[in-house]
Amino acid sequence: MRFTSEQRLDDGVLAREFTLGEIPGTLWTPESAAPVPLVLMAHNNGLPRRDPRLVARARHTAAHGHAVATIDAAGCGDRPRSAADEEIRAELRRAMRAGEPVDAIFESLIGPLVERAVPEWRTTLDALLALPGIGSPVGYSGWTALGIRLAVSEPRIAAAGLFAGGYVPRAQRAEARQVTVPLLVLVQWDDEGNPRQRALDLFDAFGSEHKTLHANLGGHTGTPWFEVEDGGRFFDRHLRRPAHEATGT
Amino acid sequence: MRFTSEQRLDDGVLAREFTLGEIPGTLWTPESAAPVPLVLMAHNNGLPRRDPRLVARARHTAAHGHAVATIDAAGCGDRPRSAADEEIRAELRRAMRAGEPVDAIFESLIGPLVERAVPEWRTTLDALLALPGIGSPVGYSGWTALGIRLAVSEPRIAAAGLFAGGYVPRAQRAEARQVTVPLLVLVQWDDEGNPRQRALDLFDAFGSEHKTLHANLGGHTGTPWFEVEDGGRFFDRHLRRPAHEATGT
Repeated sequence: MRFTSEQRLDDGVLAREFTLGEIPGTLWTPESAAPVPLVLMAHNNGLPRRDPRLVARARHTAAHGHAVATIDAAGCGDRPRSAADEEIRAELRRAMRAGEPVDAIFESLIGPLVERAVPEWRTTLDALLALPGIGSPVGYSGWTALGIRLAVSEPRIAAAGLFAGGYVPRAQRAEARQVTVPLLVLVQWDDEGNPRQRALDLFDAFGSEHKTLHANLGGHTGTPWFEVEDGGRFFDRHLRRPAHEATGT
Repeated sequence: MRFTSEQRLDDGVLAREFTLGEIPGTLWTPESAAPVPLVLMAHNNGLPRRDPRLVARARHTAAHGHAVATIDAAGCGDRPRSAADEEIRAELRRAMRAGEPVDAIFESLIGPLVERAVPEWRTTLDALLALPGIGSPVGYSGWTALGIRLAVSEPRIAAAGLFAGGYVPRAQRAEARQVTVPLLVLVQWDDEGNPRQRALDLFDAFGSEHKTLHANLGGHTGTPWFEVEDGGRFFDRHLRRPAHEATGT
């Protein structure tokens, strides 16, 4: 892991760009003498790690007291896209404009994207946990399909905050029952592209003993800011357990 | 309003019993030099104000920094029950034991209970707001049917936290669309006596521009403790607005 730039932000958070082989990423860490828990943060459907909404969530979560890392996995964000992916994305745009069903197209785009992303996130996790000041257990926040795959395959993930506003491939819907870590699932009640019932069914399917759904009025990008704060406290409860009194979770 | 006893609790909260005419109540106030917002707290279906779960919620909410008041309204808690109410309650117990439908029985019990409770809560609110150290705007927490009726009829209610685990009479279901204050609605995902879809439909029906649903796994009495803390912050956002930065709500 090689740091290529660093910037101290006005809330005391240190933002560092890194590369790990071909993988570009960003790590935000709070000012803290003691090691802080790590939260991996990914945007639904592989949107760029530099997206202002993701950056704002990451900064706030770091200022709250967690280390936060994100990467552009293969085919995501700034990374080169295969000709096949470009073709599927063009077909997706066309179908959306035409108001045609898009599930099958999403399946062929997002399914492989998740499969390719998982090993890169795990490699990144290995490298991050070797850094001084980064503790475990590890939380995950954001892209639901990737979160399901990681929660099932990566035992270091101890809690996950999932945004139920993105296409979840069949494989991940099928393995939702195998997810057992505590979950905080965010739903936008009127998310244009993501049927409400599908989000509620997914929440119902998760095998976790401790799972909470937060639904807010409004469309896909309307999640209120206080949900980032609630997410910080969710990770406090599950990633800092020994230092906190029992909360009933 | 006559205070009949007072006790300083170990978290600094002052708990005072009061009577207001025939109405018995309890007021919990935090140690605070400045006036604090008031939260009216009622148990679903008129359960007693001395119920340990309600008392625990009230104490915690007061320690968080709000004044909290509850009463036993007519026919609720310690108050005498009419022969007619006793008959309906006996019929309800019989029907529940027999596994028969109970909606019609609940309607005939809860509908009038809400109608009789509302003027007593409003009288109590008048008396509480005349006390030193109790500020407005006012929040409401708990019994959903009463909360709907108060939110629609009492303009001093500025925000409401509703527990969607109780029978909501037809009249209150019908006026849910008229509720416009910010809402935090709690649902227990596997509440034995309260169908999930009915709770989701009620959440959907509310007219409020800002409404949030929190659903947790488990049965009727399984609401996790952290929801009391989330409730405290919800009231902070809506009852202390001038002192807080905008949060997106």
